[in-house]
Amino acid sequence: MTIVKSMKKIVIYVASRCLCKILEALAFILFILFNRPKRSAIPPIVDRNLVTPAVKLSQQMRDGQLTSEQVVQSFIKRIKSVNPIINAVVFDRFEKALDEAREIDRRIAAARAGNGDTSILKMPLVGVPVSVKETIAIEGHPYTGGLKARKLTRAAKNADAVDLLQKNGLIPIALTNIPELAMWWDSNNPVYGATNNPYDLSRIPGGSSGGEAALLASAGSVVGIGSDIAGSIRIPANFCGVFGHKPTPKIVSTEGMFPYCNGEREMLLGLGPMTRYACDLVPMLKVLAGPKVDQLKLDEPVDMSSLKLYYIEDFNDPLASGCNTDIIEGMRSAIKYLVDKFKISAEKVYLDELKFGFLLWAAEANKEPNLPKFAELINNGNGELNPIVELFKKIFDVSDHTFNSIFFVALEKFSPSYGSSTNKMLIRKAAQLRK
Amino acid sequence: MTIVKSMKKIVIYVASRCLCKILEALAFILFILFNRPKRSAIPPIVDRNLVTPAVKLSQQMRDGQLTSEQVVQSFIKRIKSVNPIINAVVFDRFEKALDEAREIDRRIAAARAGNGDTSILKMPLVGVPVSVKETIAIEGHPYTGGLKARKLTRAAKNADAVDLLQKNGLIPIALTNIPELAMWWDSNNPVYGATNNPYDLSRIPGGSSGGEAALLASAGSVVGIGSDIAGSIRIPANFCGVFGHKPTPKIVSTEGMFPYCNGEREMLLGLGPMTRYACDLVPMLKVLAGPKVDQLKLDEPVDMSSLKLYYIEDFNDPLASGCNTDIIEGMRSAIKYLVDKFKISAEKVYLDELKFGFLLWAAEANKEPNLPKFAELINNGNGELNPIVELFKKIFDVSDHTFNSIFFVALEKFSPSYGSSTNKMLIRKAAQLRK
Repeated sequence: MTIVKSMKKIVIYVASRCLCKILEALAFILFILFNRPKRSAIPPIVDRNLVTPAVKLSQQMRDGQLTSEQVVQSFIKRIKSVNPIINAVVFDRFEKALDEAREIDRRIAAARAGNGDTSILKMPLVGVPVSVKETIAIEGHPYTGGLKARKLTRAAKNADAVDLLQKNGLIPIALTNIPELAMWWDSNNPVYGATNNPYDLSRIPGGSSGGEAALLASAGSVVGIGSDIAGSIRIPANFCGVFGHKPTPKIVSTEGMFPYCNGEREMLLGLGPMTRYACDLVPMLKVLAGPKVDQLKLDEPVDMSSLKLYYIEDFNDPLASGCNTDIIEGMRSAIKYLVDKFKISAEKVYLDELKFGFLLWAAEANKEPNLPKFAELINNGNGELNPIVELFKKIFDVSDHTFNSIFFVALEKFSPSYGSSTNKMLIRKAAQLRK
Repeated sequence: MTIVKSMKKIVIYVASRCLCKILEALAFILFILFNRPKRSAIPPIVDRNLVTPAVKLSQQMRDGQLTSEQVVQSFIKRIKSVNPIINAVVFDRFEKALDEAREIDRRIAAARAGNGDTSILKMPLVGVPVSVKETIAIEGHPYTGGLKARKLTRAAKNADAVDLLQKNGLIPIALTNIPELAMWWDSNNPVYGATNNPYDLSRIPGGSSGGEAALLASAGSVVGIGSDIAGSIRIPANFCGVFGHKPTPKIVSTEGMFPYCNGEREMLLGLGPMTRYACDLVPMLKVLAGPKVDQLKLDEPVDMSSLKLYYIEDFNDPLASGCNTDIIEGMRSAIKYLVDKFKISAEKVYLDELKFGFLLWAAEANKEPNLPKFAELINNGNGELNPIVELFKKIFDVSDHTFNSIFFVALEKFSPSYGSSTNKMLIRKAAQLRK
């Protein structure tokens, strides 16, 4: 029996591996046939303001060496030159941003002259323009989530995060692109079209905060905010080579985001900073955490030598493509640096359950009864979307949805629903994994 | 034999009529199921400048009662408020338009004060903003023809028509939407998306100059220019209730248009004015005709009582839907007015050949050898598009073309090609019809 079982396992493993390799080969062939790389289309950066971290820009403003208006103008000019190429910005508020910048310049000048409120001189990011993911509400601005049915929807009031940014002197300059309902790892939707990766326009920038990442990577913005329920900050930051951070749940308010998220699902969601420079991540997180910033103890020194380092190189899943070797090398050299510098030990681990990653995530997202399904959300309150009908409609240009969304609806139909035994088993597995 | 032939004819006629009625019923059902009317979404007009004919606006400027800058500002504000709803403007040049308006205001003021050139006071449309179809070149502006492969293409120099507009003091304010390659009777393309009809957002505005017509109808522009090779000015003007004129070939230069057109095909193409008010058509045509304006004898009085009036109410084609009765009624009352006023006779005619309208047009468009096919043009120089492959690609969001374009490619495959006996027969038929 044991031998038969082992044989069966080996056969399944080999078959899965073959299937994976065949699909990889097919993808490779399709890619070189239809997706020629389009590189070097982004114009070179000739403005120093565009390659300066946000904290330095703000410091220079508070030192009187630079005005917020100049910096905002630099980014407006850059967005105008790169956006026709990458389609990252879907709505701009250039005029309002300039007005706000001039107001901040006046307040800084007054504070420096000793007139009025000097607290502005202590704000580490005052006067810096910030880009905002389109699914995060700015009053009166588009708030569609890439859904055609919401094409004309405008936000009634600011998201908490936007209020905090503005309170700390940051200036929202533009809204950035997303996939439909912010639920895919590209950034293409029927309202705004697709965002391209600035390093190769034939490739996707990742998603769902892909407009944000592409804009930061092409120096059209220096700091921005995104959100992440299943990799939506981390994936595009990775694809575009910028920095992103998904904060611990319940630290940064997610009030004022579309699609709405509450209950247990909210525990998966994080609104966080995305930046062109690593040094801007912590100041941005401090701003976004607002009153809860103390819970993070960000200014408490960390005894690095007391830490243990665990890392994963592989999911050990025969159906998964391997990680790019450059990325593995990058991780290894970072580990080596930490091990050498702080004399700590690093241990490579396998987490076998990660091969069920998507199912575990889906189970966690369906921990409660009666949560809205993706098939309903995407149909904007008109019942569940029928994926077969929708694919047929695509041929005649009368579908309002991307293929990826329709595919996700189909995927959802096959996922274990709330209350099913598989769902319960997966939730248990996820809880174990967490320990 | 004659009886058999007659019987056969009757059977074909009845069968065609039935097919037509079944398709009409099907279209009606699909329409009420999936295309709910969306009316009254366009904000009301509260600015008097938006409902004044162009000739009056210009007169008021030259009389010193109004400035060009004020008028341009009125239209900028209106475009900003209606365009998110109708998607007619695909690129704006608001800042440049304002600069040009201020320059014209200075020149008018100087001329009125008796300083410098006073010829500006004789230009009937000086200072008026004008919208321009995206396929008509303005230097440095998008010039894509709705082709995704040309998304970043910018015009190298102005079309002749644009030069003439600017020479006569008109101010290009925005580029308007089109179907892909300007070859369909809607205005939807993969670069800019679809334009909606302002009277019912669920309907198309006509095409190919559909962005132009929708913008004029919603008072986002007062005069514009379009082009027409198979109804592209006349159809959208009809669908949106505005005025359009396709001039006699070779009067208005078509230099600087995409797709390029020459030889016999150019005889089918006309670049002409589209206006919100009928009284602006002639002044616009005079501007566009440039040096050839004298050939039109537009200022020579016409002896109306010497004219004969012929009109068509019906193609007598069992496969064609009947004309809307409101339109027939409108035409009849116009005829009655002319007959009563000028004591002329009106005669209803049948032109049997018109039932082959599309084939006759296609034959005329293929009068010469080696003309580029639509299937090649749409593929932007990468061989002929394969319509079957393309429909399949649509499902996965990797097609760069609309269903209508793909359908047109398929249609072209079944049209008689240059040199075929059917092509020659059709060209003869067209020549007879012309007499």
